[in-house]
Amino acid sequence: MIEAAVLTIGDELVSGEIIDTNSAIIASSLQKAGVAVRKCLTVGDESAEIAGTLEQLISNYRIIIVSGGLGPTGDDITREATARACGRKLKYNDESAARIEKLFSRRNIKFTDNNFRQAYFPEGAEILDNERGTAPGFKCQQDNTAIYVLPGVPDEMETMLTEKVMPDILKLNSDVKPLIQKKYQVIGLGEAELEDKIKKIISNNTGVYFSFLPRGGVIEIKLTCSPEKEELLSRAERELERKLDSYIFGRGDETLTGKIGEMLKNSSRTIATAESITGGLLGKRLTDRAGSSEFFAGGVISYSRESKIKLLGVPRELLASRGEVDSEVAKLMACGVRELLAADIGLAVTGYAGPEAVDNNVGLVFGGLAVEGRHSSARWNLAGDRKRIRWLTAQFAFNLVRKYLLEEIT
Amino acid sequence: MIEAAVLTIGDELVSGEIIDTNSAIIASSLQKAGVAVRKCLTVGDESAEIAGTLEQLISNYRIIIVSGGLGPTGDDITREATARACGRKLKYNDESAARIEKLFSRRNIKFTDNNFRQAYFPEGAEILDNERGTAPGFKCQQDNTAIYVLPGVPDEMETMLTEKVMPDILKLNSDVKPLIQKKYQVIGLGEAELEDKIKKIISNNTGVYFSFLPRGGVIEIKLTCSPEKEELLSRAERELERKLDSYIFGRGDETLTGKIGEMLKNSSRTIATAESITGGLLGKRLTDRAGSSEFFAGGVISYSRESKIKLLGVPRELLASRGEVDSEVAKLMACGVRELLAADIGLAVTGYAGPEAVDNNVGLVFGGLAVEGRHSSARWNLAGDRKRIRWLTAQFAFNLVRKYLLEEIT
Repeated sequence: MIEAAVLTIGDELVSGEIIDTNSAIIASSLQKAGVAVRKCLTVGDESAEIAGTLEQLISNYRIIIVSGGLGPTGDDITREATARACGRKLKYNDESAARIEKLFSRRNIKFTDNNFRQAYFPEGAEILDNERGTAPGFKCQQDNTAIYVLPGVPDEMETMLTEKVMPDILKLNSDVKPLIQKKYQVIGLGEAELEDKIKKIISNNTGVYFSFLPRGGVIEIKLTCSPEKEELLSRAERELERKLDSYIFGRGDETLTGKIGEMLKNSSRTIATAESITGGLLGKRLTDRAGSSEFFAGGVISYSRESKIKLLGVPRELLASRGEVDSEVAKLMACGVRELLAADIGLAVTGYAGPEAVDNNVGLVFGGLAVEGRHSSARWNLAGDRKRIRWLTAQFAFNLVRKYLLEEIT
Repeated sequence: MIEAAVLTIGDELVSGEIIDTNSAIIASSLQKAGVAVRKCLTVGDESAEIAGTLEQLISNYRIIIVSGGLGPTGDDITREATARACGRKLKYNDESAARIEKLFSRRNIKFTDNNFRQAYFPEGAEILDNERGTAPGFKCQQDNTAIYVLPGVPDEMETMLTEKVMPDILKLNSDVKPLIQKKYQVIGLGEAELEDKIKKIISNNTGVYFSFLPRGGVIEIKLTCSPEKEELLSRAERELERKLDSYIFGRGDETLTGKIGEMLKNSSRTIATAESITGGLLGKRLTDRAGSSEFFAGGVISYSRESKIKLLGVPRELLASRGEVDSEVAKLMACGVRELLAADIGLAVTGYAGPEAVDNNVGLVFGGLAVEGRHSSARWNLAGDRKRIRWLTAQFAFNLVRKYLLEEIT
């Protein structure tokens, strides 16, 4: 497998002022083309540092993609540093200079002498035109290593990567077939518990590589293998699906709200939400995608006790005796909002998000679900800070809906 | 100046599946403490690669901060790789194991043998407890280099960084005076417009470095200088405050919702929200911080036409004749929710978030504000994708409230 490294350059990156999104975009393109990215590096606008890093990478990787430091100002020194790492001189390119000048006049931007800096390239480099900005990129073939140098502005970089760099790499890599990858989205299991559950499947299918990525109450399982092992992968998939069954809520990059939306649409049901602890997050997430008006009837953010009484019809006496964080209250909130908005399903949450809570009960949350003729509640003990507890509350509440629809539809 | 490197670990990072935000958070904390970050690196979950990278870093930097690969599963091998790079053995720590086990039982999560992996540390390491998750971190002092190893989950990492690592580093770095930095949060001006407005202040105060970071409708202005230039900085601050006046809504890391919350509390007012386009985002953001029940009466997510009629009292005829995205509708929604929840202020939004919209009107949004005896509306044309349009809607709606309160309170 061809191995690659990604190098991003900029003081604003090593100072943490800006999050480097280019590395991930580059890495994921390479990955899809069957190139293994072994290392991503970020250094500041410092010539010796860049050149030193590049030299090391040249001796270790067959592909290096560099982004950043191609601008017109004095701190943009990627051109010089790359030439240095390759032991070449910088050479002025008339054609490129004329092209840059033309670009400026077309956009009515003042052209300064600085801009001519962008017309210098390491000797022997192949120039990569930049359709979206003024800084051209270039490619240097150094011994066995191809170095592609691209601007740092994300959309300029991405366009050049897609249109110039990747086709070139695919040629280089035409003998290699990309890896096969399958993803599953799982909810309701801890990471260790999950691995324990499927450890036999993992050991029975050597050749398929399993990885786990937990994020916000969901675990993504990724199965990767070489094209020759495709059959083995299919077997592992079948075993996994059988073992995890309804813990799996999605395939690929499917999201929990996406899945619920789809299930609601397919079964022509509508949902209404009554939110205390989440303050609107359930509704916000249900409407993240267009088309949600088909299944989302609306909601009530019943953050105050009065709103639970007046809008949702939760009895004042119940709230007085059991408090607002209670299973019965959750159920009645769900019933109340279902009726209020004439929806098929009412979903409610109430709990302590912290950091302070009655009786130190941070993370105690109740979910309520109401449908025609019945209602139920669930109790969760969630860990984390306020943000995480609210997020997990939404995840588990959505999972209540999913499990109900699973039973109903299938 | 003490030099540092940041190493983040995870297959999901080098494959580009996840954007590495930890590096920027770590780098910016180090930067503030007067430590120069020279290099950020990312490698996959591969023991030899991690160990090799670490060895190189140890010989070049006095501080190394590592994050990721401390989970309980087989692909989490940062513990082993760090021990290897330091030439130490892994040692089981009873105390830490007991602590992890206790954490699990408190949360009712099943504890499996895998979890004990998290109780192994390189010999001689100092254990750094993780208050938010199960994976403890650790510190290894190797010759002249301090290596801090933290979990990859962003909020766990950040808490440990702030509470355990940075105080330790500040001790190490006590002879260096950190740079002075002041931040302003501005709303209602474009970036070019802002820079034009204050260009004289910038040129009059050489020695103070100005930077602008636009994010989601707000621009953060950062003023940085060396400790010797503190007086100049104060002058620049005074000039800036005079010039930008009420465009400035906050100082430091103050947020728009934080500011509104504070103003509402100070003036003993309550607010209620009626959301169409934002689907719950207003409420969610108002309740992001604890204590919001003091000023947030609750809200209605009137995503459907029926809910605007039944819950908010918007006349059916008005909706039929003018549609749901309309200034009058926005006003009546604000009045309706204010009355329904007996709040001092009613805030409403309705608009087209896209990607599809009536008459190609994606980004057309109306805000409504109702207070005792009067109501008003605002019209915005917002650009961006669905997510950005919804976010900007919230920003501008909150700014309506801020401007109203500014007039009322002062």
